[in-house]
Amino acid sequence: MLRLSAPTDPAWVTQALDHLDELLLDHAHLEKKAAGTAVTLLFRYPERRVLQEPLARIAREELVHFEQVLAQLDRRGVPFRPLRPGPYAGRLHAAIRGQEPDRLLDTLLVAALIEARSCERLALLAAALPAVDERLAALYRELLEAEARHHGEYVRLALALFAEPEVRTRLQALARAEADALAAGAPAPRFHG
Amino acid sequence: MLRLSAPTDPAWVTQALDHLDELLLDHAHLEKKAAGTAVTLLFRYPERRVLQEPLARIAREELVHFEQVLAQLDRRGVPFRPLRPGPYAGRLHAAIRGQEPDRLLDTLLVAALIEARSCERLALLAAALPAVDERLAALYRELLEAEARHHGEYVRLALALFAEPEVRTRLQALARAEADALAAGAPAPRFHG
Repeated sequence: MLRLSAPTDPAWVTQALDHLDELLLDHAHLEKKAAGTAVTLLFRYPERRVLQEPLARIAREELVHFEQVLAQLDRRGVPFRPLRPGPYAGRLHAAIRGQEPDRLLDTLLVAALIEARSCERLALLAAALPAVDERLAALYRELLEAEARHHGEYVRLALALFAEPEVRTRLQALARAEADALAAGAPAPRFHG
Repeated sequence: MLRLSAPTDPAWVTQALDHLDELLLDHAHLEKKAAGTAVTLLFRYPERRVLQEPLARIAREELVHFEQVLAQLDRRGVPFRPLRPGPYAGRLHAAIRGQEPDRLLDTLLVAALIEARSCERLALLAAALPAVDERLAALYRELLEAEARHHGEYVRLALALFAEPEVRTRLQALARAEADALAAGAPAPRFHG
């Protein structure tokens, strides 16, 4: 249902739990980035009426998540600070075609895939975390439902603007690029590392 | 209380009511822009802990306003479309100093002044609109309270990061720049025209 091309390696969960504070910090920045992506699309495509309210709602929800993750950082005594992002988003971005309207289709589908991966990883963490931090596990159970919804919403928006076979073909290609972007690894523990 | 250097010319209200649909369209883009400003600051200043939640909340509220103004456009049968912005924001932006931390102080205070002007103008429109469009007047009464709150919030954030005399001096200078930016006029009816 999440249309991912490959599942997360179970070793990632172990590594994530070993670096939970850094992961949580990365997660805060990712929620902010997800809001930023939706807002950027509002500015880039004002002529696409169908995108406006859905993107505004997604941005608002991601900002709530950002605030919620900041609260978890505070509770765990982790100062919020700038953090070098992992290479995942840059690799995925390189798969987006530059010409419109291909760029719009690819951007919506890449956003859908990032939401899908976030949902998958939040589910893995939510399952592993109760023994470590039950309150964080509770938040992650809540967030993963929102990420699944956002995934579906981005695919729905792509289908509202592009023909179904084109969306399906491109989603499969980008899902492979997404799995490759993960498989290429990351130099530090990251949510999408 | 709104710290504006000069009040709006009453002639603006007459012109605004004569071009209400174009004004409303401009207003939708301005709410989006206000959200974009808050999100941009989140990305630019991740090391300023005190800014994070307040900016995230402001961005969320501006996005709600954006959606509310879109609903008014729909109700009035006005298609949402790209619109060339007036020269006001560009003129104000030119008054922001380029070196940090001056840039941060000025950006917060310019945001505070734009919120103040929006509040003042929404009040003028809310008073004039009931005879024309009572539902739009009701929304504007609601929005002007939020804009006044955002004005106070941006000033509060400036005071959390900079010394009070510096904030006061700079706010007065930028308030004059804001009044000048308005007084220089606009080629088309605009919310900040």
